[in-house]
Amino acid sequence: MKIIAIDSSGLVASVAIVEDDILIGEYNVQYKKTHSQTLLPMLDELKKMVELDLSTVDAIALAAGPGSFTGLRIGSATAKGLGWTLDIPLVEIPTLDGLACNLYGTDKLVCPIMDARRNQVYTGIYEFRRTEGKEYTEGEALDYQLFDVLPQCAVSIDEIAAKCNEQKREVIFLGDGVPVFREKLKELLEVPYSFAPAHMNRQRAAAFAMLAFRYMKEGKTVKAKDHAPEYLRLSQAEREKHGVN
Amino acid sequence: MKIIAIDSSGLVASVAIVEDDILIGEYNVQYKKTHSQTLLPMLDELKKMVELDLSTVDAIALAAGPGSFTGLRIGSATAKGLGWTLDIPLVEIPTLDGLACNLYGTDKLVCPIMDARRNQVYTGIYEFRRTEGKEYTEGEALDYQLFDVLPQCAVSIDEIAAKCNEQKREVIFLGDGVPVFREKLKELLEVPYSFAPAHMNRQRAAAFAMLAFRYMKEGKTVKAKDHAPEYLRLSQAEREKHGVN
Repeated sequence: MKIIAIDSSGLVASVAIVEDDILIGEYNVQYKKTHSQTLLPMLDELKKMVELDLSTVDAIALAAGPGSFTGLRIGSATAKGLGWTLDIPLVEIPTLDGLACNLYGTDKLVCPIMDARRNQVYTGIYEFRRTEGKEYTEGEALDYQLFDVLPQCAVSIDEIAAKCNEQKREVIFLGDGVPVFREKLKELLEVPYSFAPAHMNRQRAAAFAMLAFRYMKEGKTVKAKDHAPEYLRLSQAEREKHGVN
Repeated sequence: MKIIAIDSSGLVASVAIVEDDILIGEYNVQYKKTHSQTLLPMLDELKKMVELDLSTVDAIALAAGPGSFTGLRIGSATAKGLGWTLDIPLVEIPTLDGLACNLYGTDKLVCPIMDARRNQVYTGIYEFRRTEGKEYTEGEALDYQLFDVLPQCAVSIDEIAAKCNEQKREVIFLGDGVPVFREKLKELLEVPYSFAPAHMNRQRAAAFAMLAFRYMKEGKTVKAKDHAPEYLRLSQAEREKHGVN
């Protein structure tokens, strides 16, 4: 099973081609260009480098939100275009779930944080559990599975810190919200914590692909024409129209 | 501090540009091309994408061995050329140490395995320990540091499995040796174990960069002209010349 995964939900533009337990290629960039300048050129470059035959691709996985509204739209438009043209399904991965997969297999709680502006963060709390009903001697790539302790949501940094404190377990933080809220978190946290290093602290399409294989086995795919991003909040224009904050 | 990291020690060609705790860009490919066709074109592509000014780069980090002899020579030649031209130091990262960093922060033992042919593997056993002398409230990017329980070496799969069994702790395996020796490991292991998934199971230059920052703080750099890869074993030509196996 071969998947193209893309992510442009935050500051990173990321593309990956994964076949079962082989990461054929990935290209990740965190730079002050718009995703419309990076995402598709990166995929085109990667496709050429690994001589990808698009007819062999089974699905397009994407970070389906939340995230930057413009970023999500660029990702969705790209994924819809590919899925429709190739006549293959899309796999919508919740952004925070995919981000948490950077820390696959950890015994700590994982708390990804994206800066959502207006004093909010997109976040969630996750853990990896040993796959039930499997014996150790049966070891396979996915010995651990992701579970959400707190599903992705838009809340204040105080609220997510309080939720972490309730868990009374060590937490590892990652995401583009960390540099923004690091000092605030240090003030608020009462549990042991740490911050993921550079090679693990931002979105990677390859990590989204890991969840996409599970979603495909579970039949959780959508047709390209039916996909829409999950913004979790109203856009600025909608807020102003409806007079809400 | 800005680092270019490169790896061509195994099946993967990988380049990354990391500035402190920001991964500016990375490009990883695992495909049936030689590293001379991939490594430098990938770096050139990435450099253009993130408009990298080479004069701002502080060091070149590389997977310094062991690994494929040809792969290591391509990586070393590339790193030496860059380091010499830019007049900046090289940071030699032991290949297995860098590979282990894919699983930063795990509570399990980490056992990277590369197929070394002739019934041997390049391997080692690693663990991450909470950085001593630091309080939890002081959380920084590198809250955990890599330690070797068994430094990198070339041994048989039976020997490394026995060493893992001695540790009586759960082990997570990764590396291009896993598909080759997976069934054998299942037979031999008496401790709980698992295998890393696609997005974490091969070399990533970005993970090597993490160690490179630590090495630089410790002054562990070399001049480009003084660098040579660490093969760990004799080459085929040398073995035949000296009549050893």
